[in-house]
Amino acid sequence: MGGSMGLALRRRGACRQVWGIARRPESVERAIELGAIDGGTCDLSEGVAGADIVVLAVPVRVIISLTLELRPMLPKGCLLLDVGSTKVEVLRAMENLPSHVECIGGHPMAGKESSGIEAAEASLYGDSPFILTPLARTSENALGLALSLVRALGSRPLLLSAEEHDRLVVTISHLPYVLSVASVRAALEAAEDDERIWSLAAGGFRDTSRLAASGVPMSLDMLMTNKENVLGGVKLFTRHLEGLMRLLEEGDEATLRQVMEAARRKRREMFL
Amino acid sequence: MGGSMGLALRRRGACRQVWGIARRPESVERAIELGAIDGGTCDLSEGVAGADIVVLAVPVRVIISLTLELRPMLPKGCLLLDVGSTKVEVLRAMENLPSHVECIGGHPMAGKESSGIEAAEASLYGDSPFILTPLARTSENALGLALSLVRALGSRPLLLSAEEHDRLVVTISHLPYVLSVASVRAALEAAEDDERIWSLAAGGFRDTSRLAASGVPMSLDMLMTNKENVLGGVKLFTRHLEGLMRLLEEGDEATLRQVMEAARRKRREMFL
Repeated sequence: MGGSMGLALRRRGACRQVWGIARRPESVERAIELGAIDGGTCDLSEGVAGADIVVLAVPVRVIISLTLELRPMLPKGCLLLDVGSTKVEVLRAMENLPSHVECIGGHPMAGKESSGIEAAEASLYGDSPFILTPLARTSENALGLALSLVRALGSRPLLLSAEEHDRLVVTISHLPYVLSVASVRAALEAAEDDERIWSLAAGGFRDTSRLAASGVPMSLDMLMTNKENVLGGVKLFTRHLEGLMRLLEEGDEATLRQVMEAARRKRREMFL
Repeated sequence: MGGSMGLALRRRGACRQVWGIARRPESVERAIELGAIDGGTCDLSEGVAGADIVVLAVPVRVIISLTLELRPMLPKGCLLLDVGSTKVEVLRAMENLPSHVECIGGHPMAGKESSGIEAAEASLYGDSPFILTPLARTSENALGLALSLVRALGSRPLLLSAEEHDRLVVTISHLPYVLSVASVRAALEAAEDDERIWSLAAGGFRDTSRLAASGVPMSLDMLMTNKENVLGGVKLFTRHLEGLMRLLEEGDEATLRQVMEAARRKRREMFL
């Protein structure tokens, strides 16, 4: 996420300079080679010194601990933005930042199952929603700066409260991940009886299982920091799955057809 | 499916002639324009007269009724092949064909959510598995002819019994469809409270919900003719989904991480 953002911002000349902070020096070097950053470091305080905007592009619980760690390091007037998958717990950590620092939560509804600098793509953020969740303390100026950044990436900004965000993303983002993992697990069990299953897997399974290939640290933090909403979303989903199976079992074809047609209509209206 | 097959076979010059049968004369005309067929008709008996191979590319229960209807029409020595999503009931119907006719079940593990002649693509079958389910009565010659057809399409043939087929395709094909429909239904219900959900939907939901856009007649026949296996597959899936949610609820992070990592490994091994 960080590498793709750097690529997009640098290509559009949106920032005076894009600086990268990574744990391993090789990642910094590679990001420079790929044109994702102007320069970088493995030292957190060196990396944020003099920054106008600091973007945290790491799993949610790492964002939270970095927010604590950055407290004494962030320069006056600097804007801290994160791109984590959940927002309530991130904003709770941001509340504790000193008042000379600006902060806002962010969540780009973009991404892919591969991560790391080699997977960086300048177009990753393009033409997709980028949710911003301001805090009560976020100033108009800081919000304006965050909006400019989002627009420079080619994304569509959308303002939500952290609570709204964590509730709304479940059905269309966290739930798909969980279903994907459970699908692969079910196929793994079915394949114990007959491993030819794997040779049959085609486009349908490829799509349904894609999110299961997502990075585990990111996904685990997403689930652990949005537990109640995820549990609720899965309950809602299971009710609909059971409803479909009841119709099939009872042979209520007319209703089954209606349900399938409504789902088809909505899906085509959304994406085709 | 029929149009794509015609395009592929004609481009490779695999058949002397490709003839199309459709319900509406406009579809026949359009298929000729697009180069999917050499000629066509809306008359079933005219269409199959003189054919070496007749391919039924319609929903499963239409395949079954066409197989009955074609009984008196199929020329001697002709091979009847279908491309329906389930095989046990199709083969049961084929068993009743006169002995001067050859027959074999087929299921290409390819397809897309749009159907009709406008969606035809010469590359649709390429590089994907094409299951063939011979009957006890299928001769070596007939099997050889079916294998040549599959290879001419660029697909990888795979021989299974009809029972094996109907059991094996559940986890990797029928289940993904059902999950997709239930996902869209769950999102529809969640959106009743807050319709901004739709503006957040991005790549993850697009993939998980793609199969919900599949043709309803085809999908309904697939479910109705493979009821027991589908119900069993959903039960297996639900057990894994509930297992995941139990780990999340109990906060058993170590096991949750293991499960997620195993799913990620398998998915990457399969498709990346």
